[in-house]
Amino acid sequence: MSENKIPYKIYLSENEMPTAWYNVRADMKTKPAPLLNPGTGKPLSAEELTPIFCEELVKQELDDNTAYFPIPQEILDFYKMYRPSPLVRAYCLEKALDTPAKIYYKFEGNNTSGSHKLNSAIAQAYYAKQQGLKGVTTETGAGQWGTALSMACAYLGLDCKVYMVKVSYEQKPFRREVMRTYGASVTPSPSMETEVGRKILAEHPGTTGSLGCAISEAVEVATKNPGYRYVLGSVLNQVLLHQSVIGLEAKAAFDKIGVKPDIIIGCAGGGSNLGGLISPFMGEKLRGEADYRFIAVEPASCPSFTRGKFAYDFCDTGMICPLAKMYTLGSGFIPSPNHAGGLRFHGMSPILSQLYHDGYMEARAVEQTSVFEAAEKFARTEGILPAPESSHAIKAAIDEALKCKETGEEKTILFGLTGTGYFDLVAYQQFNDGVMTDYIPSDEDLAKGLAALPQVPGQD
Amino acid sequence: MSENKIPYKIYLSENEMPTAWYNVRADMKTKPAPLLNPGTGKPLSAEELTPIFCEELVKQELDDNTAYFPIPQEILDFYKMYRPSPLVRAYCLEKALDTPAKIYYKFEGNNTSGSHKLNSAIAQAYYAKQQGLKGVTTETGAGQWGTALSMACAYLGLDCKVYMVKVSYEQKPFRREVMRTYGASVTPSPSMETEVGRKILAEHPGTTGSLGCAISEAVEVATKNPGYRYVLGSVLNQVLLHQSVIGLEAKAAFDKIGVKPDIIIGCAGGGSNLGGLISPFMGEKLRGEADYRFIAVEPASCPSFTRGKFAYDFCDTGMICPLAKMYTLGSGFIPSPNHAGGLRFHGMSPILSQLYHDGYMEARAVEQTSVFEAAEKFARTEGILPAPESSHAIKAAIDEALKCKETGEEKTILFGLTGTGYFDLVAYQQFNDGVMTDYIPSDEDLAKGLAALPQVPGQD
Repeated sequence: MSENKIPYKIYLSENEMPTAWYNVRADMKTKPAPLLNPGTGKPLSAEELTPIFCEELVKQELDDNTAYFPIPQEILDFYKMYRPSPLVRAYCLEKALDTPAKIYYKFEGNNTSGSHKLNSAIAQAYYAKQQGLKGVTTETGAGQWGTALSMACAYLGLDCKVYMVKVSYEQKPFRREVMRTYGASVTPSPSMETEVGRKILAEHPGTTGSLGCAISEAVEVATKNPGYRYVLGSVLNQVLLHQSVIGLEAKAAFDKIGVKPDIIIGCAGGGSNLGGLISPFMGEKLRGEADYRFIAVEPASCPSFTRGKFAYDFCDTGMICPLAKMYTLGSGFIPSPNHAGGLRFHGMSPILSQLYHDGYMEARAVEQTSVFEAAEKFARTEGILPAPESSHAIKAAIDEALKCKETGEEKTILFGLTGTGYFDLVAYQQFNDGVMTDYIPSDEDLAKGLAALPQVPGQD
Repeated sequence: MSENKIPYKIYLSENEMPTAWYNVRADMKTKPAPLLNPGTGKPLSAEELTPIFCEELVKQELDDNTAYFPIPQEILDFYKMYRPSPLVRAYCLEKALDTPAKIYYKFEGNNTSGSHKLNSAIAQAYYAKQQGLKGVTTETGAGQWGTALSMACAYLGLDCKVYMVKVSYEQKPFRREVMRTYGASVTPSPSMETEVGRKILAEHPGTTGSLGCAISEAVEVATKNPGYRYVLGSVLNQVLLHQSVIGLEAKAAFDKIGVKPDIIIGCAGGGSNLGGLISPFMGEKLRGEADYRFIAVEPASCPSFTRGKFAYDFCDTGMICPLAKMYTLGSGFIPSPNHAGGLRFHGMSPILSQLYHDGYMEARAVEQTSVFEAAEKFARTEGILPAPESSHAIKAAIDEALKCKETGEEKTILFGLTGTGYFDLVAYQQFNDGVMTDYIPSDEDLAKGLAALPQVPGQD
């Protein structure tokens, strides 16, 4: 197909949609380090994980060798309601930038959860249902993951208990109401429903909650109530496996039009979108079949890749979850209050951490006012109001396209547009009013978090 | 194509997209009555309309005979950013209802304006740009139309002045921020910027504004500032012309799979979505080529079709706009305060009014708690949180599908899913909390509005 015939949106037909997830670990020479039991310091066994996660998900979490996992038919049917997502040629953005670069984005925001999170939520809910469980528990901050999970559970008739950070529950009531419309119970955290919640409330009566506390409550409820398991929307190997559907679709769509991207860009918080987007392309690179530049983009206010340490650390602030080897700022790290949107996790997917450590990927940190400038330009030219998280990738894609303008290179750039910003308008208002600020943590600030990393045998 | 092979979503390819709008008036034996000058009582001439509307739009407004208007290339290009919209087979809803009916919906919500309004906004902004104008003015209530217009103006580099009802400006700040992100100026109405605004503020210092007042301000600014024109998102003939793209795409998608709908359902406020959806199908019916049942669904709290009068009336509460012959509740009619969402216009598109009057279409009124029950069922099964407006059509589609369950008929039902409910969560919260109420105006209430219709020669 000649270049000028490429449509604005490339959709796969339903029979071209991927029928198996791709597990990039199968092609990694150095596998991601195993999760450790924080008590014993030894790798966690399947038996130790099954009280927390569904059996099938434990298998997926621990399997470093199987390259493809067939997607069950019921999940494929659910995917058909909102997938395939379009691969979009950003003709209007290219024109506005006056760049010779060809810009594409894979848009995951055309569903009510507003992001790619639904791809893993339906998978995790499905396996819980298959195991005969009654329901699942989880935590949510602003509500993106909780919304996705509540949609998946409504579809499958599964109970969904969401612990929502109290300050978000009160100040961002809209995602809460979406979750309630889908039948989820949404509890402000800390709550009196759990031991850990009661303890925290007794010690800090006025607390507005934290993600770490909400995780602790969700895990407690899952492990104490028969028929419940805990689910998580990022970081885990299983999540990157499910999210590979993004990259598989993108690759199939590129193959359909006979185009090969040169640069692939994704925003990085816990790594679910970035890992999903790049997986099949990274597989080609790992197998020596093709080469791509991969760029992870993170907030300068939460720079785990670019300023963190590759070490074992807790996945949660409450230090009750397993230890994962990853780029981390320390489990006590919390972004400054002026940080808008997500990408606020202190660590990073162990798979992506290993790949970055081994030199297969670049990373850069960007400041949030420049991110919102990119978001505004994108909205005005491409017509989609992007999520703040996604806008980190937009910023890097624009920067790369402008470099092409200088050099005259016609590079093909792909970035992940993970979602829409319809529930992030408080941040847009700050930007529109000109009162948005940036924050870069000092070396001293970061050193404190890194000094508190747990003691693990063999770790510096 | 065999029934069981029909995909969940039917997308046209870009070269299958409509390249001309269809003007249903060309096939109507009885044309809609002309707009009248409220001062003289005589049909408005093109000369009288050009100070308010762009020249090309005036032509479209007054042309009852041309069947097809080619869509300019720049508008086609803009359409490609968010169109074609999918025709969706509601397999999951059918299964949940256990009905033999085949349910389809045309989904117009996958764009940042959140609705079909963008289809006409880009057209109206384009013709303003073509005429060399500086900008356009409009009013907005909750902000759906204003958002669409600001997106279109940002794309074309046109100034966009939106007068937003003050109570919405203050209580629903999120759509306001979307408009600002797209570069529109958003002014709470009534404002001190206009003569009419200053007059109203002097008389009613504490007023929170009304749509009628916002229209008056937008029209004043358009007519007093060289290089500006006023634009409107519904009711007008030109708007139904642009919105015909919805029905043309739907018909092409049905033709592609070899299916013909039996019943076509749309929600009706001013008529922009309903008119756009049904136009090409209605054309076939008017020409005697095919038969369809058309059902307009309106709120029981604002029942212009089912309880209004077919008569000349003002289009605005402020009584400064032309007179249109339509089903109306009287220009002073305002839905009760418990009415959620849009569909609150006192009148109805003159085209649709004439078609309904001539027996080509049915209409029914539904109460809002039943509408939100339908919305919740739809969200939980089909995965999309629908706009309250669209949910009126969902309610009627479910009712028709349940009738099929009783009779065993395998009817094919198409309804218009005009948009998403992401900015309507205050209403969803009322529903989730069980505090949503219904309201049906009494005959006495309606009689007051109908008694105040303007005096026009030849009108009862």
